[in-house]
Amino acid sequence: MASMATFDPQLDLVLERTIDVPVHLVWKAWTTPELLKKWFTPAPWQTVDCEIDLRPGGAFRTVMQSPDGAKFPNVGCYLAVVPNQNLVWTSALGPGYRPLPGPTESTGTATLSFNFTVSLELTADGNRTKYVARAMHGDAAACQQHAAMGFAEGWGAALDQLIAVATTIA
Amino acid sequence: MASMATFDPQLDLVLERTIDVPVHLVWKAWTTPELLKKWFTPAPWQTVDCEIDLRPGGAFRTVMQSPDGAKFPNVGCYLAVVPNQNLVWTSALGPGYRPLPGPTESTGTATLSFNFTVSLELTADGNRTKYVARAMHGDAAACQQHAAMGFAEGWGAALDQLIAVATTIA
Repeated sequence: MASMATFDPQLDLVLERTIDVPVHLVWKAWTTPELLKKWFTPAPWQTVDCEIDLRPGGAFRTVMQSPDGAKFPNVGCYLAVVPNQNLVWTSALGPGYRPLPGPTESTGTATLSFNFTVSLELTADGNRTKYVARAMHGDAAACQQHAAMGFAEGWGAALDQLIAVATTIA
Repeated sequence: MASMATFDPQLDLVLERTIDVPVHLVWKAWTTPELLKKWFTPAPWQTVDCEIDLRPGGAFRTVMQSPDGAKFPNVGCYLAVVPNQNLVWTSALGPGYRPLPGPTESTGTATLSFNFTVSLELTADGNRTKYVARAMHGDAAACQQHAAMGFAEGWGAALDQLIAVATTIA
């Protein structure tokens, strides 16, 4: 069993909600590029490209596009993949667990100056899902910066979009 | 199955040798703190402390000590653990997959300015072991810096020490 870091309110941001979507559709929305592109980035931003190599060490790539058309590529690496239960990926590593290129201060995201690891934890509750998305940071400054960028609003809005997409594939 | 990065001679350093040690003893030497302390750092340096939480996401901590007594703590995170076959860990993440604290240029090692991921690949050959240790870097500069620091000599000398230790536990 993988060892996740203990929750630390100084270092972690969490979105927790029980949603009216069966767990297998939440998983499908997170792991199917054509679906993820429809919900991952709060409008009017878009996710215009996505690559998912769904295994530990596999690539998670997205390209986000701003309303004025600027593109922002991101790359991360999956660390844990437990279907319908747990998906973990980090911006601190690239595909195949390789550290990211560039000076060591580089991150996998074009828009952030810090790294984070996301743990998505799903629990089936009949046709509903307890949805917990945790973003882990290395220090309080990075956590605060992520919070100030609108983590709660952004991830919440994306989750609303995920729910809307899930209804189309139910 | 985990997805390892493809070997890249511009980015990877490799120590490959077939040694007269059974694979289970090589694994034991890499995964038992009291044994690892005896071989991991080429003399006259020493590894004076070691913590091994042997599972994906688990901590790999060492404290190296220079001949004049200065201590250098290092921390990393295991990514893949396949007994007697494959051990993968990175300096780019701390325990529980959490990014490391400090500015994003921080690494898990007190002595290096870049991150690396190590993949140890073991293949049994009767009572011998084909031993492949690969250090993966994010760019050629980091790889060259690691090479210039004496990767080949250092890891080779440590492997000689591992062999000597293994004979004491055979």
